[in-house]
Order: sequence, then structure tokens, then C-alpha cells
Amino acid sequence: MLYKVNTVHHKFMSSMKHIEIIAFDADDTLWHNESLFTITQDKYKKLLSKYHSEEWIDQRLFDTETENIQHFGYGVKGFTLSMIETAIELSEGRISGAEIMQIIDFAKEMLKSPIELLEGVEETIKKLSQTHDLMIITKGDLFDQESKIARSGLADYFSKVEIVKEKDDEIYQKILTKYAIDKDKFVMIGNALKSDILPVLRIGGAAIHIPYHTTWAREIVSEDELKSYNFLQLEKMAYLSQLFA
Amino acid sequence: MLYKVNTVHHKFMSSMKHIEIIAFDADDTLWHNESLFTITQDKYKKLLSKYHSEEWIDQRLFDTETENIQHFGYGVKGFTLSMIETAIELSEGRISGAEIMQIIDFAKEMLKSPIELLEGVEETIKKLSQTHDLMIITKGDLFDQESKIARSGLADYFSKVEIVKEKDDEIYQKILTKYAIDKDKFVMIGNALKSDILPVLRIGGAAIHIPYHTTWAREIVSEDELKSYNFLQLEKMAYLSQLFA
Repeated sequence: MLYKVNTVHHKFMSSMKHIEIIAFDADDTLWHNESLFTITQDKYKKLLSKYHSEEWIDQRLFDTETENIQHFGYGVKGFTLSMIETAIELSEGRISGAEIMQIIDFAKEMLKSPIELLEGVEETIKKLSQTHDLMIITKGDLFDQESKIARSGLADYFSKVEIVKEKDDEIYQKILTKYAIDKDKFVMIGNALKSDILPVLRIGGAAIHIPYHTTWAREIVSEDELKSYNFLQLEKMAYLSQLFA
Repeated sequence: MLYKVNTVHHKFMSSMKHIEIIAFDADDTLWHNESLFTITQDKYKKLLSKYHSEEWIDQRLFDTETENIQHFGYGVKGFTLSMIETAIELSEGRISGAEIMQIIDFAKEMLKSPIELLEGVEETIKKLSQTHDLMIITKGDLFDQESKIARSGLADYFSKVEIVKEKDDEIYQKILTKYAIDKDKFVMIGNALKSDILPVLRIGGAAIHIPYHTTWAREIVSEDELKSYNFLQLEKMAYLSQLFA
């Protein structure tokens, strides 16, 4: 079952006393990210509106991305190549060079847009770093993620940063083994059930879910699948200070 | 000065006796990579031959890549976005959707092309792994590099893999500190003077240069700059077995 913050289970609370290492997801946990993709996708749909309906564009882009993840992985560059591919297909090749150039410019804007931290992140991270060993575990494009961590101003609070290709049971196990981290002393915090929470729980670790206001379609998990898992859900980052005080 | 293999300096040889950790660059040191870019660039020039001369296309693509490295970093995806951007500019927007789709297909081909190990690599790595701790230090796209390491069949011989954004003095120092590696026990091996050799020498480590038959324009170092550095140059990987026997 899922423990909401207002009904925090005593057992969960007391297990947090042993925690020494707190690992955070980055995108949509520490800073806004999905909203940047949403804004870009809106501009993209506007650009292609003469060819097709918004729903159809969304659907086709999703299909292209799904097909291309095996080639391109996650991140802005892969997303951009998928936008270009979808635009060519949807327009049956009629899309102009100038329009494709606009899509490339979307990517450049995304990659240099300022990092907007989520509410309460800076204070909470600063405070927790005084009592716990903090870590970032994020997936995506290495260049892009390293640049975001540097621009976030938070880099110095984290003793370890792991940028991984995919977040599954095996990867979390590998990271724990690599740093000789005891599972009872480790908690993972993130917004994505599928990537940040469930794999950690499956390998016997603890996890805290802090939902973001939108969820990437690829990260949605059914209520049914959640039933068998025990984890805490917090509404905002600031509650962590109380939990780990 | 630069020590060629046939005139190996005794001082260098004896310093190799203390080496415990041997780090390797990956692209064009363990497996062919630049040749894949060269082949793709040849196809690209053929595709655009109706718009401009080959020399002009090379020059413009180089300029676009240089400008875009700040946004895209290294790797196939960034290279592909730069090819698309250059194609639009060179053709003054006349490039067709179908032609751009061909460029995206070049990228997919590159990303799934089989890994061709360089001559002597498999035997040498296998042998060295019995006596030394082996490591990979490579720059580029995380997804792409991890996939190549996995496909190479060599992954099990390396105890550590570091995929980094840029290879400079600071990054090498960071890696040595992270793993508490003594500089006297460390040697870096690679094909690129600028990325694999000089930064390691500058922080007081040892390095061995094994040139690849082509050098990426961005990695070329002048003879003059080399004069003040001491390092060994080997013609092929297989000579390492003798050096570390």
C-alpha cells in the first residue's frame, strides 16, 4: 500500500532513522523538466498544425519516440531527432528546410534554458546535506544532465552522481554494490514510479514518491500494479526535512 | 620528447613496473569509430553533391559541429543534428524531407553498426586483465558508449568504466581522486593526443599513445606543442603485452 504524508506509517518513519544515504532523481524531482518538453511539444504541434490535428501529431510523435528509444535513448537530442522524423512522415515530406531548422532551434533553446528548481528544493537539499550523504541518480543524456547539474547550483551538496542509461532493478543493485551501500541505509526519492520507486522497492530498498504535476506518458503505472508495494508519498520536497530531522 | 617503440627509453620502461591500473580510451583505441563517421560523412557529401562541392560541405559541417558542441556535446546524435542543420543551410532550405530522412537513417545505421575491435585488442586486453586492473575512460554520448561497450564483448575485462563529457586535466584528476588512485600506478592509453595523452601528462600521470590511422580534425595537436611532453608511442596494441609482462 501507499502511505500518504498525512497518514505516515510509524514503521516507515522509524525505518528512516537508519538512513545514511539519500538518493534523488533529478528531472522533475529537483528541477522542472517535463514542462520544458511539454512547452516544446506545443510549439511543435503549432508548427505542424497545417498538416494534421494536435492529437494525431502527439500520437505519431509518441510512436516514433517509442520506436527510436532503442537507437537514441532518452534526452533532448533523441527527442529532437524523433520530432524531425515525425514531421517528415506526417507532412509526407512536404515539411520545409526552414521548418526543420525551427525544430533544431527548439532543441538548442531547451538545452540552454535556465534550470528552475522545484519549490523548497534548495533549502531542503542544503539542510539534508548536513546530516546525510546525498546522491543523484538520473537517466538521460550525459552531456545534458551534467550541464544541468552544474547549472542547478546544487552540485556541491551531492557526493555522488550517477547518470544511467535506464533505471531498472539491475542498475540500482549495481550502484548499491559499487559503493558498498547497505540497503537499510538507502532511500531513493523521485517523481517517477516506474523509474525511481518500483525498481528500488523490488530490490529491497526504500523509496519516497514526490509526484510532479505532469507525468511522461512512458512513466505511467497502473493503480493495480501499485497495490503490492509499500512506499511513502509526499506532496512536496520540504516535508523531507521533517522526515529526516 | 616522444619515445617511439623502437627506441623505448629505459626510464619509461622501468616506470611501467609500478603500474597497477591501465586505463583505455575506447573509440579508435579499442574499436573503430572515426572510420564510421568518415563513411557516413562520405554518404552525406554524396547526398548533398547537387548543392555544393565536397570541400565546401566538409568545411561547413565542421563549422556547424564546432558551434554546436556547446549544445550537443560529442556523439552520433549531435553529429546528426549538425548534419541536418548544415544540409538546410547549404541547400538554402531546398533540401527535401526525404533527404533529411536519409540523414536520420545514417544515424540509426551508425548506432547499430557492429563493433569492430582493432587488431590485437581482444588478446591484449584479456592478457592484461590477468595482471592489472583495467579501466575505460571515454567521452561521448552515454547511451551510445554503454551500448558499444556491451556490444564489444570486452565489458567483463574492465573493473571501472567512466563515460565523461570532456577529457581535460580536471576530469582525469577527478577520476584519480574518486578511486583513490596513485598517479605512479596509473597509465592512460589512447589514440588522441589532445584528449587521452596530454591532460594525463599535465597532471603528472603516464600515458601511451597508439595512433589511429585517421585523426578527427578537432583532435589534431601541433608538433610544437608536443615538444615539452614525455610519453611513449606504440604502433599497435599488441606491444602492450610485452611492456606490461
